[in-house]
Amino acid sequence: MDYLMNCWYMAGWSDDVPGSQLVARTFLDQPVVMFRRSDGTPAALLDRCPHRVVPLSRGIHLGNAVQCAYHGLRFDGSGACIQNPHGAIPPAARVKSFPMADAHGILWIWMGDEPPVEEAIPDLSHIQALPALAQSKGTMPSACSYLLIIDNVADLSHVEYLHASTLGGGAFIGSRPRVAGSENDTVVTITQLSEAVAAPPVYDRFLATPGVKVDLMNRVTWMAPGVLKLDISVVPVGEAPESGLRTFNAHIVTPCTATTSHYWYWLGRDYRPEDADLTRLRQALMTDVFHVEDKPILEAQQALLGTTDLYAAHPVLMGTDGGPTRIRRSLGRLMSAASDNRVSSAQ
Amino acid sequence: MDYLMNCWYMAGWSDDVPGSQLVARTFLDQPVVMFRRSDGTPAALLDRCPHRVVPLSRGIHLGNAVQCAYHGLRFDGSGACIQNPHGAIPPAARVKSFPMADAHGILWIWMGDEPPVEEAIPDLSHIQALPALAQSKGTMPSACSYLLIIDNVADLSHVEYLHASTLGGGAFIGSRPRVAGSENDTVVTITQLSEAVAAPPVYDRFLATPGVKVDLMNRVTWMAPGVLKLDISVVPVGEAPESGLRTFNAHIVTPCTATTSHYWYWLGRDYRPEDADLTRLRQALMTDVFHVEDKPILEAQQALLGTTDLYAAHPVLMGTDGGPTRIRRSLGRLMSAASDNRVSSAQ
Amino acid sequence: MDYLMNCWYMAGWSDDVPGSQLVARTFLDQPVVMFRRSDGTPAALLDRCPHRVVPLSRGIHLGNAVQCAYHGLRFDGSGACIQNPHGAIPPAARVKSFPMADAHGILWIWMGDEPPVEEAIPDLSHIQALPALAQSKGTMPSACSYLLIIDNVADLSHVEYLHASTLGGGAFIGSRPRVAGSENDTVVTITQLSEAVAAPPVYDRFLATPGVKVDLMNRVTWMAPGVLKLDISVVPVGEAPESGLRTFNAHIVTPCTATTSHYWYWLGRDYRPEDADLTRLRQALMTDVFHVEDKPILEAQQALLGTTDLYAAHPVLMGTDGGPTRIRRSLGRLMSAASDNRVSSAQ
Ligand code: FES
Ligand code: FES
Ligand code: FES
Repeated sequence: MDYLMNCWYMAGWSDDVPGSQLVARTFLDQPVVMFRRSDGTPAALLDRCPHRVVPLSRGIHLGNAVQCAYHGLRFDGSGACIQNPHGAIPPAARVKSFPMADAHGILWIWMGDEPPVEEAIPDLSHIQALPALAQSKGTMPSACSYLLIIDNVADLSHVEYLHASTLGGGAFIGSRPRVAGSENDTVVTITQLSEAVAAPPVYDRFLATPGVKVDLMNRVTWMAPGVLKLDISVVPVGEAPESGLRTFNAHIVTPCTATTSHYWYWLGRDYRPEDADLTRLRQALMTDVFHVEDKPILEAQQALLGTTDLYAAHPVLMGTDGGPTRIRRSLGRLMSAASDNRVSSAQ
Repeated sequence: MDYLMNCWYMAGWSDDVPGSQLVARTFLDQPVVMFRRSDGTPAALLDRCPHRVVPLSRGIHLGNAVQCAYHGLRFDGSGACIQNPHGAIPPAARVKSFPMADAHGILWIWMGDEPPVEEAIPDLSHIQALPALAQSKGTMPSACSYLLIIDNVADLSHVEYLHASTLGGGAFIGSRPRVAGSENDTVVTITQLSEAVAAPPVYDRFLATPGVKVDLMNRVTWMAPGVLKLDISVVPVGEAPESGLRTFNAHIVTPCTATTSHYWYWLGRDYRPEDADLTRLRQALMTDVFHVEDKPILEAQQALLGTTDLYAAHPVLMGTDGGPTRIRRSLGRLMSAASDNRVSSAQ
Repeated sequence: MDYLMNCWYMAGWSDDVPGSQLVARTFLDQPVVMFRRSDGTPAALLDRCPHRVVPLSRGIHLGNAVQCAYHGLRFDGSGACIQNPHGAIPPAARVKSFPMADAHGILWIWMGDEPPVEEAIPDLSHIQALPALAQSKGTMPSACSYLLIIDNVADLSHVEYLHASTLGGGAFIGSRPRVAGSENDTVVTITQLSEAVAAPPVYDRFLATPGVKVDLMNRVTWMAPGVLKLDISVVPVGEAPESGLRTFNAHIVTPCTATTSHYWYWLGRDYRPEDADLTRLRQALMTDVFHVEDKPILEAQQALLGTTDLYAAHPVLMGTDGGPTRIRRSLGRLMSAASDNRVSSAQ
């Protein structure tokens, strides 16, 4: 499958890769082994010893290096072979390495061949800055394309049906989302305003005056290729925005293969900052709703599609599909531009 | 795989689809969702929402319609979209529907594009007309082509080997079956007469005088594409046919995929009409014999064949293969005629 | 996949096929049923009835013959149909047979079409001749190509890494193995001498004077296509070879499919001939080390390679790869010669 290559993908939470371990994950169809150097910086190598095609992740972690389990070749974080116990180091003994970054509690990996662009690391510092007890995060591997997960988050109209009894309440039906995209195609925002509606039950009881009408805003911000920020504000009609409730969340996907994905979420809020029970409740709700309601649908979509892309399967689109469609178009243009680039630099 | 399309396939027993449920089954490689309209008539749709390719069977059944689980589009039994909660109904929002019929306790589905022919519904009223306590039926999904099941029933010589200790007794070896087919290729009969033989044990003890010699007749009647009626009569030599024992049975197959099948059986008899224990015994024997003796062989055949058709694998044929071979030839001619038809109507 | 065809492959231990049973195994992608004739000689047929493509191994063993479970055709060890209960024997009713040999406790099968060459049966009589209590053998089916197993045994440098804590001790690092091959490409020997080293722990305690320095020799003898003899001698420096400890072992592989293998080992020694506990200990060590250390690596190699041959995946080779590389070259030349042969005999 084709992927956008020269960009940052989430590789995991920073604490998924402790100093002492080798962690194997597949990104964009490529097996990767991740570890930390002695100074704590993360490193990632193709998880395939160039000697006899053994996963390096079955070996051991030694200081700055990985030692292959089979015959003991040792590779540092740059992929260079730094030790061959059986003789001279063969010049070809080098394994592909992938740049990594560790930012705001997240490990990012750059799978492309161009030099990594530090400034392009998605900025999620606003969630990390929230009170620690008001944050939670999770991991939900899914047997579907990352694009189906993006479609799911970028079209919240499904909340009123798929999540009718858990998250629904009518707010996503009355109004039409506004879709806007950046000129360079790396950002798309989908904003849905519902004015003077009942607050969704999960918010209502935390309002100063439960039961009052609110202005509800849901904003999804897609950042290419796989980050979806989700900001929600619930403000009693006529009151100042600051008096409302706000949550700041992120849903992040990275392709494992064409039909499987790494899916992470990060939830935060600015009210009741010390209420760990509420944090646990929101976390449990997120996990349950995903596993019971979204995941079966996403995986059934993939099973029906096989290896065909949804948009190649001639779906009937409607107004609510504006967000997903815009994101897929932006992603398509970014991928075309990247391939034009490859062609022109080859000339 | 190629299938005969414009014909009736069994989709299940009538009571497999109660009024309140959505039932998902695959027929001829196509996912289908079945349900009943408010008036009880059965309906079948392609099990794939045209919006975002989700199985409609994961949704809910509402009166005459199915509502998709993901975003709530609603489709009636004709496949028309009758409600879009998010705006106007997109003109393309229509899902393929399949004609169904409910006859003699069986649901039939018409998978082809030509108009369904009501009179072509296989007539099994003679079994339904038997005493209720003397009937039983069952479902035996099998990991093999429906053609291998047809071969099995259409050549009963296997009874003396595969079922030597359960159903055998010698009747299928002494005589050669007579094979006859209708000119239009939709019916083939295979009749085997064994004169003046010992009655098979399962019949002998119900004769007026157990132990007498009998004339035994087994007649298999194939009706394209997947019905096999099996009529058996056991008549003491020299007595009137009416004084004998007769059973009327059907074995019915519908392709699920090229290598998996729906397989149903229906057993009935005209003697000891109130003996529910005998009915249970015949039912248990049928189920046990199939699961222990036939199913492993049929599935092992399929495993050896992979996706190759048996008759393309150059089997060595013998006299006993007359029935299966005639049926496969008839089916082949029906499929060729159907495809000639398509070509000429396209001109 | 291509295999060397006109040669002997191990089919199992002699006692794997008792007189009364049908044993089904796949060799070189072909399903085979093995049994013994009344006189005890082994026979092997393609496990596929020519009538309706049923595994003959599901049938029954009758004297010199196999009777098919489905309709009772009976085949002798030459593959000839010797009985058809339903009429004349169809001339085409014949199943492919494979020559077998029973030598030194091992069953060998000849999968090619040329006449079998008795003298080519690999000679392992030297192990069989060892004291019975000092021998043991085992079976370790593996989800990897037989070539990866050959690589493993033919390059013992891995012992110091993969088996560092179980079998290692440094002997395989200090010295470079000497590789030699026969002119006809059917034999390759890889000999590694380590002079005046500490004996590996598993030998040291059985020396007359534990702790003395020894000359250690490991010799792997590959015999095409799948036998690897492994002879080890541990002799105190300056003493006569007879005063040392010697083990004589064989590792034997036969392709099941391109990516799965039958793998057998046979261990023997010439010291402490009555010590059954030591025999059990060596056997347990072999089994444990393989299952815990080698098998996961071999199967991970295969998983990374998919259906690509290792040497087609451009591995980085080093000095220690001399043995495996020489064997693969010999095997390649034998296969080319076989195919040249086919071409010239077709002219
Ligand atoms: S396979 Fe990695 S060192 Fe040999
Ligand atoms: S997928 Fe069925 S309504 Fe959207
Ligand atoms: S399949 Fe073997 S005898 Fe018919």
